Amino acid sequence: MSPSVVSLAEIEDAARRIAPFVRRTPLLTARDLVPGCELLLKCENLQVTGAFKARGAHNATFRLDADQAARGVATHSSGNHGAALALAARNRGVPAHVVMPSNAPDVKKDAVAAYGAEITFCEPTLAARTETLERVVALRGSHVVHPYEDLDVIRGQGTVGVEILDQAGATPDVVIAPVGGGGLLGGIGVAVKSRSPGCVVIGAEPAGADDAFRSFRSGVLIPQESPDTIADGLLTSLGRPNFALIEDRVDDIVTVDDDAILAATRQLIERAKLVVEPSGAVAFAAVSADPDRFAGRRVAVVLSGGNVDLRRLPWLAAGPG
Amino acid sequence: MSPSVVSLAEIEDAARRIAPFVRRTPLLTARDLVPGCELLLKCENLQVTGAFKARGAHNATFRLDADQAARGVATHSSGNHGAALALAARNRGVPAHVVMPSNAPDVKKDAVAAYGAEITFCEPTLAARTETLERVVALRGSHVVHPYEDLDVIRGQGTVGVEILDQAGATPDVVIAPVGGGGLLGGIGVAVKSRSPGCVVIGAEPAGADDAFRSFRSGVLIPQESPDTIADGLLTSLGRPNFALIEDRVDDIVTVDDDAILAATRQLIERAKLVVEPSGAVAFAAVSADPDRFAGRRVAVVLSGGNVDLRRLPWLAAGPG
Repeated sequence: MSPSVVSLAEIEDAARRIAPFVRRTPLLTARDLVPGCELLLKCENLQVTGAFKARGAHNATFRLDADQAARGVATHSSGNHGAALALAARNRGVPAHVVMPSNAPDVKKDAVAAYGAEITFCEPTLAARTETLERVVALRGSHVVHPYEDLDVIRGQGTVGVEILDQAGATPDVVIAPVGGGGLLGGIGVAVKSRSPGCVVIGAEPAGADDAFRSFRSGVLIPQESPDTIADGLLTSLGRPNFALIEDRVDDIVTVDDDAILAATRQLIERAKLVVEPSGAVAFAAVSADPDRFAGRRVAVVLSGGNVDLRRLPWLAAGPG
Repeated sequence: MSPSVVSLAEIEDAARRIAPFVRRTPLLTARDLVPGCELLLKCENLQVTGAFKARGAHNATFRLDADQAARGVATHSSGNHGAALALAARNRGVPAHVVMPSNAPDVKKDAVAAYGAEITFCEPTLAARTETLERVVALRGSHVVHPYEDLDVIRGQGTVGVEILDQAGATPDVVIAPVGGGGLLGGIGVAVKSRSPGCVVIGAEPAGADDAFRSFRSGVLIPQESPDTIADGLLTSLGRPNFALIEDRVDDIVTVDDDAILAATRQLIERAKLVVEPSGAVAFAAVSADPDRFAGRRVAVVLSGGNVDLRRLPWLAAGPG
C-alpha cells in the first residue's frame, strides 16, 4: 500500500469531530439471513438523516474555519447528501444552500427544507445543476462540499470502518460496502486496511451502474454512462480520489442485478425489520447472491441508507395480496 | 412496595441465562420525533423472532431441568409467543408443540414451522385452543409455557428493563412500554423500580382493548371483552400475577386510539427506519399523542415488536400515491 491522500489518523480525527452529531449506529449480528454465514449488519439506515452521508457532511462542515463557515456550505444533490449537509450546517449554525432538480421527489425536498437549508431549484440536468451551483456560490461565497470527491467527506465516511472494527469484537473476515461515487468504500478501505490488513474489503455495485467494477478490473477510470438500476443512490460515476483509494485498499468489486437487490431489500425489511433503500441493500444482496463465497466467514455488511418510499417497492406497490 | 413474586435478582439471573440466544437490542436516541423530548427507543422489533417474546420464552425453556425439557415445551399462540418458544426449544435441542388456530396468517405459521416446531391446528376459538393444547400435553408430557402468566416468562421480559438502565447512561425520567397480558410491563416494572425507584414507569394500551387501564384505575382485575384495535398483539386480557406486579410497580397506564397508533407506526417506519408492528408502536404513540406531558424529559420507549405485513397498513395498502 502506498501512502494515500486519506490516513487512518485523519479518519479517527473525523470520528471525534462528528461524534456529538451523528449516531454510533448498531452492528447487529444475524446468523439466519444467509445460511452458513455470520453477518454483522452495520445499520447506517438508522443514521441521522437516514444515511451514512451525515458523517462526511458533518466532518466537512465542522472542519471549516469560522470565517469560511459563516459564509455557509453548498452542494447540488437530489438525494441523501443534500439533507446531510443541511443538517450539518444547522448543527454548526451556518447557512446551507442546496441546488436540487425541480423533479426531485417531494419527500427529498421536504427533508432538505426541514433541516433549514435554502433550496434553489434547477432543470434536472447535470449541466443545469453545476451552473446553478456556481451562481449560488458566486453570490454567497459558500464553501462547496462535493458529495464524494471531497477528502473530508471521504474521511467522515471512513468512520463507518473504524466503528465496525470497534464494535465487532474479533475482526471480521470481510467488510463489504456499496459503491457509487466511492466515498464510503474508499474511506472504509483506508480505515479497515490500516487497522486490520488481513480483513478483506469488497465493494458491491449494481450491475446496471458498474463503472467501479469495470474501472477496478481495467485499472482505468471509466465514467458511468446511462446507468439503469433500482439502486438510485448509486447512479453516479466513481470519483477520482476515490478510485485511487479503492485501487490501493480494496480487494475486489462485485456486481449484483436488480432482482437480487430487490430480493435483498425485501428480506431486510421483512425479516430483519430494517427499512433499507435498494442502494442500501446492495452489499447484503452481494453476500446473499453468492453464499458459497462467504460460507463460514464473519462478514460485516454496510446497510448504507433507508430513505425509500415503500410504496415504490414492487411487492408493496401491488397492495394487499 | 411489597415483596413480589418476581425479584430483580431473578431478572438479572434470566439476563445471564438468555444472553447467548437473544440480542441486546439497540437503545437509539431520537431528538426529532417528539419535539422537546429526548426519546430512547428500545428496539425489540430487532430482537430475534422480531419481538421481545424471545426473552421470556428462552428463560422459561432454559429453566427446565433436563428431564422436563426432554419432553418438550408447548403453548397455544396465534402470534409472536409461538415463534419465540419454537426458537427457544430449537436452541435447547428439545421439541416444541405449538397449537395454532387454522386461520392464523401464513407468515405466522411459516415462522413457527421454520423454527422446527410441531404445529397442531385447531378451530379459532379459545375453547378449541385450550382443549387442543391439553390433548397435546396429555400425549407428549410437554411443559406448558404460558405467554404472560408464567413467572419465568415475566422474568425474561423484565430483562428489557435491566438493559434500558444499563444502556441509557443517566437514568431516564420515564420508561413506557405497551401492555397486553402484562408480562413485559410487569417485568419492566420490577426491574426499573428496584434499581431506580425515582424513574416513572408507564403502561400504554390501545383504547379498544383497555382492560389494563380499567383494572389499574379500579383496583379490580377486569377481563377484556370484545377488544377492537389494530394492535392485534394486545387483544388479550391482563394476567393475574401481572396485575399484581403492575399495581405495585407501575405509576400509570394511558390509552391511545387506533389513529394515533397508526400514525406512530408510520412515523417509526418512515422517519426512524424501523419496521414496527402497530402493537409495538403503542408506547411511542402515547408519548407522541401527549407531548406536553413528556416535554423536557428523557423517555425510554419500548418498541416491542416488528412482525407486520406491511401490505396491511392503510397508507401502504393503497399502492403508489
